Amino acid sequence: MKVVVLVGGVGGARFLLGVKAALGLPPVGEPEQPSEHEITAVVNVGDDAWMHGLRICPDLDTCMYTLGDGIDSAKGWGRLDETWSVKDELAAYGAEPSWFGLGDRDIATHLVRTRMLRAGYSLSAVTEALCDRWRPGAALLPVTDDRVETHVAIEDPASGEPRAVHFQEWWVRYRAEPEAGAIVPVGADEAAPSPAVLAALAEADVVLVAPSNPVVSIGTLLAVPGFREALRSGPAPVVGLSPIVGGRPLRGMADACLRAIGVDSTAEAVAAHYGARSADGILDGWLVHTGDTAEVPGVAVRAVPLLMSDVDATAEMARAAFELAGLPGGDR
Amino acid sequence: MKVVVLVGGVGGARFLLGVKAALGLPPVGEPEQPSEHEITAVVNVGDDAWMHGLRICPDLDTCMYTLGDGIDSAKGWGRLDETWSVKDELAAYGAEPSWFGLGDRDIATHLVRTRMLRAGYSLSAVTEALCDRWRPGAALLPVTDDRVETHVAIEDPASGEPRAVHFQEWWVRYRAEPEAGAIVPVGADEAAPSPAVLAALAEADVVLVAPSNPVVSIGTLLAVPGFREALRSGPAPVVGLSPIVGGRPLRGMADACLRAIGVDSTAEAVAAHYGARSADGILDGWLVHTGDTAEVPGVAVRAVPLLMSDVDATAEMARAAFELAGLPGGDR
Repeated sequence: MKVVVLVGGVGGARFLLGVKAALGLPPVGEPEQPSEHEITAVVNVGDDAWMHGLRICPDLDTCMYTLGDGIDSAKGWGRLDETWSVKDELAAYGAEPSWFGLGDRDIATHLVRTRMLRAGYSLSAVTEALCDRWRPGAALLPVTDDRVETHVAIEDPASGEPRAVHFQEWWVRYRAEPEAGAIVPVGADEAAPSPAVLAALAEADVVLVAPSNPVVSIGTLLAVPGFREALRSGPAPVVGLSPIVGGRPLRGMADACLRAIGVDSTAEAVAAHYGARSADGILDGWLVHTGDTAEVPGVAVRAVPLLMSDVDATAEMARAAFELAGLPGGDR
Repeated sequence: MKVVVLVGGVGGARFLLGVKAALGLPPVGEPEQPSEHEITAVVNVGDDAWMHGLRICPDLDTCMYTLGDGIDSAKGWGRLDETWSVKDELAAYGAEPSWFGLGDRDIATHLVRTRMLRAGYSLSAVTEALCDRWRPGAALLPVTDDRVETHVAIEDPASGEPRAVHFQEWWVRYRAEPEAGAIVPVGADEAAPSPAVLAALAEADVVLVAPSNPVVSIGTLLAVPGFREALRSGPAPVVGLSPIVGGRPLRGMADACLRAIGVDSTAEAVAAHYGARSADGILDGWLVHTGDTAEVPGVAVRAVPLLMSDVDATAEMARAAFELAGLPGGDR
C-alpha cells in the first residue's frame, strides 16, 4: 500500500510513527525491513528560514530526527543529547537571532544542507542525502523545492508598530502572543510542487492529512499552486485527522493561527475549512476525537480517540483513517 | 610609537604578546588602557579555507583568540574549553574534510564571518567586527581582502599520483610529510594589500618580521603584489627575528617549507632569502638566537635569546628588535 501523509513538524512526525506502526514497519531504532508498504511524507517548508547564514528546515528535520531516532523526544524537536556551545558564542558576538534554539548537533545538519543548496542541489535532493544517514523508513519530501516562507503581520510588541515577521519569530520569539493580522506564505505564488510530490500523489492508495497545524503546516502545502489540484485529481481517497480536540488544539498554538484566518477552533470548522472534495475542497473523510462532532456535506466523519499519547494510540488513529478510506486497516 | 608586525598564526600570535608587553600594554585578560603606542599586525591569509561552507581564517583567529584571552594555550590554536559536537556530527554524515579540527565555539566565529562576507563586507571589516568582542589590543589586519590560498604540490600518499592540495590538507591532514614539490600562493597575482595595510606601513615607526614561517606565513604576505614595495619604500626600519634556532625551526615544520623553496634551515639562509633592503630585499636588521650567526651584507645582525618560552622572554626579543632598529627599547 502506498500511503502519502501531509505533515508539519512535531505533531506530523509523531503521527508518522503511528502510520509506520499501523503498517507493521519496524519501530524507531530498529533496522529497515523489506515491506509491501511505502510511506511518503509531504512536509511543510513554510517554517524554513535562513539564520546565521544557515538554511534551517525545522519540519523536515523534526520528521527526520523523529523517525531516525535522533530526536530529543522530551522537547519534541532538536537533537537528543544536544549541546549549545555555538549558540552561546553567537550570543557573545551579539549575532541575531539569539532567540532561536540552534543546537550544536543540529547545526551539523544545517551545514551539510546549506553547503549542498549553495552547490545547486534541490532541497529534495539534500533531504534525501541527509536521510541516507537517518534512514527514517519513509520518504520525506519537501512539498516544493522553491522558497516558501510563512510570514505573519503583527504589531511589534516593543514599538507597537505594524511589522511583518517570519513565522519563527512570531512562534518561537513571541510565542504567538501578538495577534496575527495575516499569515502569508511568501513566495508561494511562484512555487511549484516538486516532481516527486506530484508523482507520489498520482500513485497513492490513500492520502492522510496529519493532525498538524491547518494554517501554517497543511495550509502552506495547499498554498503551493498545483498541489491542491494534484491532491484533488489524484486516485486516492483523502482522509484528515482533526488537530482540534474538544475545542483546543491537540498541541501547539494552532488556535492563534486559526483565529488569524477567521476559522473557529473546532473539529467541524477545520473540516469545513479544508472542504469536501466534492465541493472544491480536499477531504473525503474526517476523523474527530471521541465526543467531538463535525458535519460537512460530502465528508464521511467518524469519531475515534485522537490523542497521540503513545505510538500504539497513534497507530490506532492511522488504522481508523485507513478504514474510513475504505482500505484494510493496516496490521490490525 | 607605531609598530607594525608581520605575522602568521601560533608563533606570530605569541610574538605579539611579547610586543605588547615590551610596550607596556596590559597583558591578556586585563582591560585596554590608553597608550601612546599602537600595534598593527599584518596577518597571513594563505591558510584560509572554505570548509563545510564556512570561511576559516586560522591565522587571524589564532591572533584574535590569543590576544583576546580566548585561546586554548596548551594547543596554541582553537578556543579554550572547546567542544566538538558539530565535528562529530559532520563525520556521522560523512561530510569532508573530516581531518580538520573545527570546534563548536570556533564555528560561531566562522558563522559570523561567513555571513558578513556573503553580505559583502571585506575580510578587514569582518575581522574588525569580530575583534569588537575580543579586544585584542592590537589592530589585526589581513594582508589583503582578496582571496589568496597557499596550495602545495605533493604526491598523493595513497595513490602516489601528483596532486595539488590546500596548505591545510598538507599541514594538518598529512603533517607536512609528503615532500612539497612547490608551494604556491594561489590568487596572489590578482590580489592587492588592503588600504589599511598600506596606511599602516606608510605610518610605521618600525616594522618587525615575527619569527613566523618564512614561506607560508611571511612569504605569502610578500607574495601579494605591492606589499613588498610598500614595505621597502616605507619610512620604518624593518627588523626580522629568525624562526630558525640552532638549525631547527622555533616551532612547526618550517623546514619542510624551506626545503620546498631551496632554502637551508639556518638563520643565515632565511635572512639571505628575505634579503637586505639595500639589495632589493626587505631587512635592515636581523636577530638570531644566541650561538647562531648570519652574515648578510647590508643587514645589521645581533644574537640574543630567541626562545618564546614565556611572555617576558618574548618581550625581551621585541625590545632587542626595537634597539636594533635604533629605537628606544620599549618599556625597559
